[in-house]
Amino acid sequence: MGKNNAKISNAVIKRLPRYRRYLIELKKKGVEKISSKEFSSLIGYTASQIRQDLNNFGGFGQQGYGYSVDGLYKEISAILGLDKEYRMVIVGAGNLGQAIAKYTHFHKQGFKVCAAFDINPNLIGKDLDGIEILDYENIVEYVEEEEIDIGIICVNRDNAQEVADKLSFAGVKGIWNFAPTDIEVPTHVALEVVHLSDSLHSLAYHMNDIQKKEVAQDKHREEENLRD
Amino acid sequence: MGKNNAKISNAVIKRLPRYRRYLIELKKKGVEKISSKEFSSLIGYTASQIRQDLNNFGGFGQQGYGYSVDGLYKEISAILGLDKEYRMVIVGAGNLGQAIAKYTHFHKQGFKVCAAFDINPNLIGKDLDGIEILDYENIVEYVEEEEIDIGIICVNRDNAQEVADKLSFAGVKGIWNFAPTDIEVPTHVALEVVHLSDSLHSLAYHMNDIQKKEVAQDKHREEENLRD
Repeated sequence: MGKNNAKISNAVIKRLPRYRRYLIELKKKGVEKISSKEFSSLIGYTASQIRQDLNNFGGFGQQGYGYSVDGLYKEISAILGLDKEYRMVIVGAGNLGQAIAKYTHFHKQGFKVCAAFDINPNLIGKDLDGIEILDYENIVEYVEEEEIDIGIICVNRDNAQEVADKLSFAGVKGIWNFAPTDIEVPTHVALEVVHLSDSLHSLAYHMNDIQKKEVAQDKHREEENLRD
Repeated sequence: MGKNNAKISNAVIKRLPRYRRYLIELKKKGVEKISSKEFSSLIGYTASQIRQDLNNFGGFGQQGYGYSVDGLYKEISAILGLDKEYRMVIVGAGNLGQAIAKYTHFHKQGFKVCAAFDINPNLIGKDLDGIEILDYENIVEYVEEEEIDIGIICVNRDNAQEVADKLSFAGVKGIWNFAPTDIEVPTHVALEVVHLSDSLHSLAYHMNDIQKKEVAQDKHREEENLRD
């Protein structure tokens, strides 16, 4: 599987989950094969981009036939490592941590939340739809004994690095950071970040940008009308 | 403010919220000015990248002085449109929608959740820390009357496009989509997407990639040892 995974750019990796989502939709509709051109009109990347992306992993397409939807789905799933199960813990059982604990969508995809951790005595011992909130003091033992793969950080900015250090020390292979700050992890730990505030700020920028352009257009139109 | 905003690349825009976060930290520490070199060692971009990014907006830096932390903070905030207040509604008051409704972090930054909407009669009428869940049937009226700027989509995949259409029709200027699917919006509406599943799948990929490299290194080391 794959020719030379070491050189695949992050941009390609980021597109793979999206390919996979569209393949799931195609499978649901009973579509068995698809050309890069058909795939292009669906997903919005150019056909040549699609061929180039998938070539990174050895191709899969057959000349004159296109891609097997199920075959490609399985290959991309394997490349992403989605043919396995992952055991996760959440650190920080506030609103966001609780929402992620209860978000069953991940569980269906093989990502199981085993427990949540907090330092707040009012939260410790509580149950979130079957997921217990445990004392953060015991997290290292728990991660080791339960062979946890992923730690999800939902604490506030100031505690995020300390939690990341502890999770890395305890042996997680990946950290999913929701805290609104940048953290550092050892090279043997993978890091993926969801910066909700940054995303909201980008949205604000684009809203204002659209409005500025509209104002400029209106002004231009008025000037044209005056000239007539 | 700004020279020619029309041409600024999305990559630069995406970095601005991050610059702003670091400037907030510097302000907290009482730092008043910073050179692009110092900023570089802090944020991890090269000094030339920083100068190039900030030049997009007209510079702000003074030769031999560096950047004024507070000045730069204010300028970036204004560029991002964070000197205003935004009124938001959440559509879909399930776990994720509820978490976002309760996430006070956004409110502090000028993004106010005014109401949540759902079709589930068991949820309608409930109160989420002061935010009422209303009947989705009335969303167009509400958005118009309450002058809502942003609609946050937290419904499932199958209903996301319909919700986006309704929000756009009602007059929101921006949509923040959390539904695990791609949606289309009119050109006068800004769209920002948070694909949690895609992010988790990227994490899985990177975890497996690190592991593959470790296995390859171990094998290499074993072969070296055999040769000795």
